Amino acid sequence: MTRTLKLTLEYDGAGFEGWQVQRGARPRRTVQGVLVEALERLTGERVAVEGAGRTDAGVHALGQVASLVLERCTIPLDGVRDGLNALLPEDVVVRAVEAAADGFHARKDATAKRYRYLILGSPVRSALRRGRVWHRRGPLDREAMARGAAFLLGTHDFSAFRAAAGAARRPVRTVTTLTVEDDPDGLVRIEVEGNGFLMHMVRIIVGTLVEVGRGRIPPERVREILAGHDRRAAGPTAPAHGLYLVAVRYEAACLGGRAGTSAPASARPEGRP
Amino acid sequence: MTRTLKLTLEYDGAGFEGWQVQRGARPRRTVQGVLVEALERLTGERVAVEGAGRTDAGVHALGQVASLVLERCTIPLDGVRDGLNALLPEDVVVRAVEAAADGFHARKDATAKRYRYLILGSPVRSALRRGRVWHRRGPLDREAMARGAAFLLGTHDFSAFRAAAGAARRPVRTVTTLTVEDDPDGLVRIEVEGNGFLMHMVRIIVGTLVEVGRGRIPPERVREILAGHDRRAAGPTAPAHGLYLVAVRYEAACLGGRAGTSAPASARPEGRP
Repeated sequence: MTRTLKLTLEYDGAGFEGWQVQRGARPRRTVQGVLVEALERLTGERVAVEGAGRTDAGVHALGQVASLVLERCTIPLDGVRDGLNALLPEDVVVRAVEAAADGFHARKDATAKRYRYLILGSPVRSALRRGRVWHRRGPLDREAMARGAAFLLGTHDFSAFRAAAGAARRPVRTVTTLTVEDDPDGLVRIEVEGNGFLMHMVRIIVGTLVEVGRGRIPPERVREILAGHDRRAAGPTAPAHGLYLVAVRYEAACLGGRAGTSAPASARPEGRP
Repeated sequence: MTRTLKLTLEYDGAGFEGWQVQRGARPRRTVQGVLVEALERLTGERVAVEGAGRTDAGVHALGQVASLVLERCTIPLDGVRDGLNALLPEDVVVRAVEAAADGFHARKDATAKRYRYLILGSPVRSALRRGRVWHRRGPLDREAMARGAAFLLGTHDFSAFRAAAGAARRPVRTVTTLTVEDDPDGLVRIEVEGNGFLMHMVRIIVGTLVEVGRGRIPPERVREILAGHDRRAAGPTAPAHGLYLVAVRYEAACLGGRAGTSAPASARPEGRP
């Protein structure tokens, strides 16, 4: 009896060359690669794993989602979770294993994704948060950043906010949430949710809003940058190590497979990194 | 003209064999050691640095305090801070440099210290918080832990909560704060403040409260353990990597030296690690 599973994953992106296994002469350490290796050791099956978001090198995840099909393995869901966590390296962990409907595909079925970006605006860097936040020495005007961000809400052609190398054919995406807030830890926290993101789109949005926060770009100019469809008019791409894939949304019908969930009460895909 | 300085330090304890420089055949990487090295490079002087708390290997700090005297160096306070931060390795940072009164000594003048201990109680470990929290798979009864903690408030002989190797002659200490709370991030956060701590005292208190939280020790038994002065009756020593030195308190008269402060508005010695 085959089972389709949904895995929710947390990882520290620092030690990975992104999510996706890449073919090439040089072996690369990827999250997908170490996950497949652990799954094959645990189940004895050859397993194909699909990730909801192909996070770049250095990008962290609190709630990446992966889907896979097990052909014969009968290990209960909690056993899959705990077995994988015993086999996985310490910089990646399976937060939950749930049964999904037959045919569930983590990327194709995703209806929305939520990302978070953390900026430490301070003359002093942080030792304990190094590699987890983007440190900027100068002050940032959060109110101006929030005003600039508002122009990006809604459905737009985001060509100005995509990497030149991006492969998606249609550059239209819908951004449903984009907030700039003071985190209780003294960080600037940018949260963005949308139905999908172009290559580097979140990091270019953040890089542009930081230019707004520094006073280099007036908030109203963000609307013109968006309308101009020219990548060169937007700000620089913010570094990967401040970015977190927080959660992926699905229609309820994709989930609720045959055998419940292993999610612990304290699984917090929305939690702070 | 000599200047006495007060430095506030943050560090990730993972890469250090504690605060204190130790003489011996094998060179050890200590926070004091890398700080003295950076100070001597920056100022060209031989500098002796005193730390408020001799944190053990693996223990983190958000607000360790160090004192030192500069004989000739005239670099302004902000320059000392930024210069040190450029020279120090990335796992330690000077959050603030302040002028202190002549004779100020970070350890001898300290009137109180505050520590924090973070426990992740969950079937699932954390990838992003690894090395920053003590992961416990089983559930913890926070209410029972808080009731047990209350017996430790006040002035007591803490012999039951000290390492056998501890060198302090008098085992009497005053604990003014000891709280067990749910952190917004889903962690159990134990905060303890007192006029001083015996060797491993905070970690043995935490280890004992965790036994209370697991139901192995009734809360009321903590009073008897304290009164018995027998280390063997208390719980195990909690691991170093969940512990943070958060802040050190001084009388105002020790501080307020001749030349103000370099503390940034966002320096948060009380902030969450």
